[in-house]
Amino acid sequence: MAIELKGLTKRSENYSQWYNELVTKADLAEQSAVRGCMVIKPYGYAIWEKMQQQLDRMFKATGVQNAYFPLLIPKSFLCREAEHVEGFAKECAVVTHYRLKNDPDGNGVIVDPDARLEEELIVRPTSETIIWGTYKNWIHSYRDLPVLCNQWANVMRWEMRTRMFLRTAEFLWQEGHCAHATAEESEARTVQMINLYADFARKYMAMPVIIGVKSANERFAGALNTYTIEAMMQDGKALQSGTSHNLGQNFAKAFDVTFVNKENQPEYVWANSWGVSTRLMGALIMSHSDDNGLVLPPHLAPIQVVIVPIFKNNDQLQKINETVAPIVAELEKRGISVKYDNSETKRPGFKFADYELKGVPVRLAIGARDIENGTVEVMRRDTLEKQVEPLDGITGFIANLLEEIQENIYKKALDHRNEMTRTVDTYEEFKAEIEKGGFILAHWDGTTETELKIKEETKATLRCIPLDGDKTPGKCMVTGRPSAQRVIFARNY
Amino acid sequence: MAIELKGLTKRSENYSQWYNELVTKADLAEQSAVRGCMVIKPYGYAIWEKMQQQLDRMFKATGVQNAYFPLLIPKSFLCREAEHVEGFAKECAVVTHYRLKNDPDGNGVIVDPDARLEEELIVRPTSETIIWGTYKNWIHSYRDLPVLCNQWANVMRWEMRTRMFLRTAEFLWQEGHCAHATAEESEARTVQMINLYADFARKYMAMPVIIGVKSANERFAGALNTYTIEAMMQDGKALQSGTSHNLGQNFAKAFDVTFVNKENQPEYVWANSWGVSTRLMGALIMSHSDDNGLVLPPHLAPIQVVIVPIFKNNDQLQKINETVAPIVAELEKRGISVKYDNSETKRPGFKFADYELKGVPVRLAIGARDIENGTVEVMRRDTLEKQVEPLDGITGFIANLLEEIQENIYKKALDHRNEMTRTVDTYEEFKAEIEKGGFILAHWDGTTETELKIKEETKATLRCIPLDGDKTPGKCMVTGRPSAQRVIFARNY
Repeated sequence: MAIELKGLTKRSENYSQWYNELVTKADLAEQSAVRGCMVIKPYGYAIWEKMQQQLDRMFKATGVQNAYFPLLIPKSFLCREAEHVEGFAKECAVVTHYRLKNDPDGNGVIVDPDARLEEELIVRPTSETIIWGTYKNWIHSYRDLPVLCNQWANVMRWEMRTRMFLRTAEFLWQEGHCAHATAEESEARTVQMINLYADFARKYMAMPVIIGVKSANERFAGALNTYTIEAMMQDGKALQSGTSHNLGQNFAKAFDVTFVNKENQPEYVWANSWGVSTRLMGALIMSHSDDNGLVLPPHLAPIQVVIVPIFKNNDQLQKINETVAPIVAELEKRGISVKYDNSETKRPGFKFADYELKGVPVRLAIGARDIENGTVEVMRRDTLEKQVEPLDGITGFIANLLEEIQENIYKKALDHRNEMTRTVDTYEEFKAEIEKGGFILAHWDGTTETELKIKEETKATLRCIPLDGDKTPGKCMVTGRPSAQRVIFARNY
Repeated sequence: MAIELKGLTKRSENYSQWYNELVTKADLAEQSAVRGCMVIKPYGYAIWEKMQQQLDRMFKATGVQNAYFPLLIPKSFLCREAEHVEGFAKECAVVTHYRLKNDPDGNGVIVDPDARLEEELIVRPTSETIIWGTYKNWIHSYRDLPVLCNQWANVMRWEMRTRMFLRTAEFLWQEGHCAHATAEESEARTVQMINLYADFARKYMAMPVIIGVKSANERFAGALNTYTIEAMMQDGKALQSGTSHNLGQNFAKAFDVTFVNKENQPEYVWANSWGVSTRLMGALIMSHSDDNGLVLPPHLAPIQVVIVPIFKNNDQLQKINETVAPIVAELEKRGISVKYDNSETKRPGFKFADYELKGVPVRLAIGARDIENGTVEVMRRDTLEKQVEPLDGITGFIANLLEEIQENIYKKALDHRNEMTRTVDTYEEFKAEIEKGGFILAHWDGTTETELKIKEETKATLRCIPLDGDKTPGKCMVTGRPSAQRVIFARNY
């Protein structure tokens, strides 16, 4: 896995190219031989695993259990919920046959025409249909409710233009699917999960997000209401980072899932679904990284601390090894993941650049003189600042430093978002401001017509109607009609 | 999720039906709307998660890292390795189109004939081809080796006759794919991983397994050598529970993956792959369970201890709650998963039967009189024995009991296997013994011809050439030709 340290394009030169190069050079992912599908490499996958583990803990703490539903969905299932099929069924991978056979002409294998499926199967683009088809068997009485299931799975959407992590034909995600006895309970769960995502984004990804409601036009296909968390990338573009959908009784009706309520009356079940995907990897990369490479928040970094020895001969290395061993042990005891890289095939300068590229939050460099002095050089990846610290008490220092870095990169991202968020009152002003990027808070009349006009004319999309913040009514910047509150517009990924 | 406690068929009446009913009634899995694909329900998935977590820790301790490779494989990739395509490419799900469209006749959606893929994509039946196609980019020098990757993934094989967990069209598994600089290192890793699987089976699944080598006929398509762990189910049938394949340079040659060795010479890379799947769930169920339901080894039980209060009124319940709270806390502190089921909607008798069905290893029942006496009734699931124990020191007692149960069910399975393993010398004897089930140790001449004759005539397959045990040479029971050692025959799942 050769690492090319040189030649990372600067963000200011070409942000998009910087991103693509960084994903590859930092060994996060690469394009595969299959159009639009990526290979997630071990280092990238290790970050995703840290995200998964934390999210999984948070889900389970709210009573959610994991389960697994089939990859393939009968075509007819997709058509049961009318809006859903409009939104999802079109661009997807279709399985039509179940067998290959040797080519009679001797050219490898061909699809066996005799092995055509009676009904085509779709590689799941999302699983509401197959899951609600299953819930019909699980739910009969209010005593069976709520059902709180999540699955970690791969899904496919045949996207035309793909970018690693941000938009790929196949991606990994989790999808939660809950069934409730009342509309209120389902709405409460929908809100609980978007708050959980926001909490995760802020505390673990060090990514400030705005919680809001999607407009009808941006709503999930088949939902009554979609909640979203919206993040701002360094280039000022918005990235939708997680969604939670109140599905009302739509899927219960489509799949005839009823229960006998406490009053002994049959009633359709209330549903919600919620998900985040490997797209979060793209969000993480674009939120914090710089022209030297990745900047990872300590709470998600697979390697939190790297220690690099500086030595001229084996004697020196030996002494450094002896000094470092107890530090490694102490860090591990504190639950800090540490790598001591004393490989002799690479020079320290190469190692420094490599771990910077990989976003390791804290680097220690220790040489013969340091041992004499009882010191170590500490570099923090977020600011690239170096300082010399006493070896005595170094693990406590590092533990504090990791938390400081976590807070600092969150604050940096928040400051950036605040700077790039403006309020405008006229459409002219809006058109000028949107060109500069960032979030624009503006009044909107609530219609899809106006929303689409704005999108058409400015490429800005309505990101969300924020739940918090200024709720002062006003007049739509385009039509002058009444607006209940300002909403957020931005260009987006 | 209604639980039907009654009517579990007895093993002695119909073992196969007992298994199918148990999978459903214990809420492990159920058939889905898609032929041959199952839904893994939360309780079943929780057991699979425990397996995953432990295996993942064991893999990582040997230096393996997780990664993710595409679900879909270009058809041409499957043809690159000649034997591999013969063994795998035939019965699989084929994606031919990437879009649906509205049916002009208004009947839902149809496959869009204009969206035909230039090259068909296969839902992975296993990932050697796509992974070695990727490794070509990763490996250039001996310094890039070894590559030790694993992925947790879903795979599909279009099986005609399916049974939940044992043989399903879609299943979950892990597949490790390692690349090495030398044949010796690759062989060592192949053996290391089959030993790891055996270790896991014995210590966590409480399942005795025999490690052996597969005959040429049963070898993985494209491998030089396949190692296997073979377990015996309660009905005396064998179940292949994990395999590790030495792939030699076959896939490196097929995908042209070379590296420059230390002598600066180009050389093909050496490969191995190894995997276990949700089939292990079937093995677990069939190894230990009884006519009352599941028997789970404590090391893999999602709930290790359940506590059921016996009360006549709210006062009594209140007192029991107070007594139980510190016990729950202490058990959790010891890392023991415990459920206190004080729900008032179900009677204790129902709860007892339910947790027996679900295989919870230890059940505590505590009533008003117990509180007066400072005692609790303890039932162990493996023997169904009840005993009254003092509340004082109960958590230490339980911790020991869990280990005792773990050992006991292993021993029980081992005793059963030993009883059902016989040595035979003549083919006549073999034909009689194989009807009684179990493992038959017999001499075999090493040819596929003889192996297939035995299979044809007796439905017994050659499970493996065991690595340990008696290595005395002899004469083939069928042909009288020389045999290097006895091998294991059995009927199998």
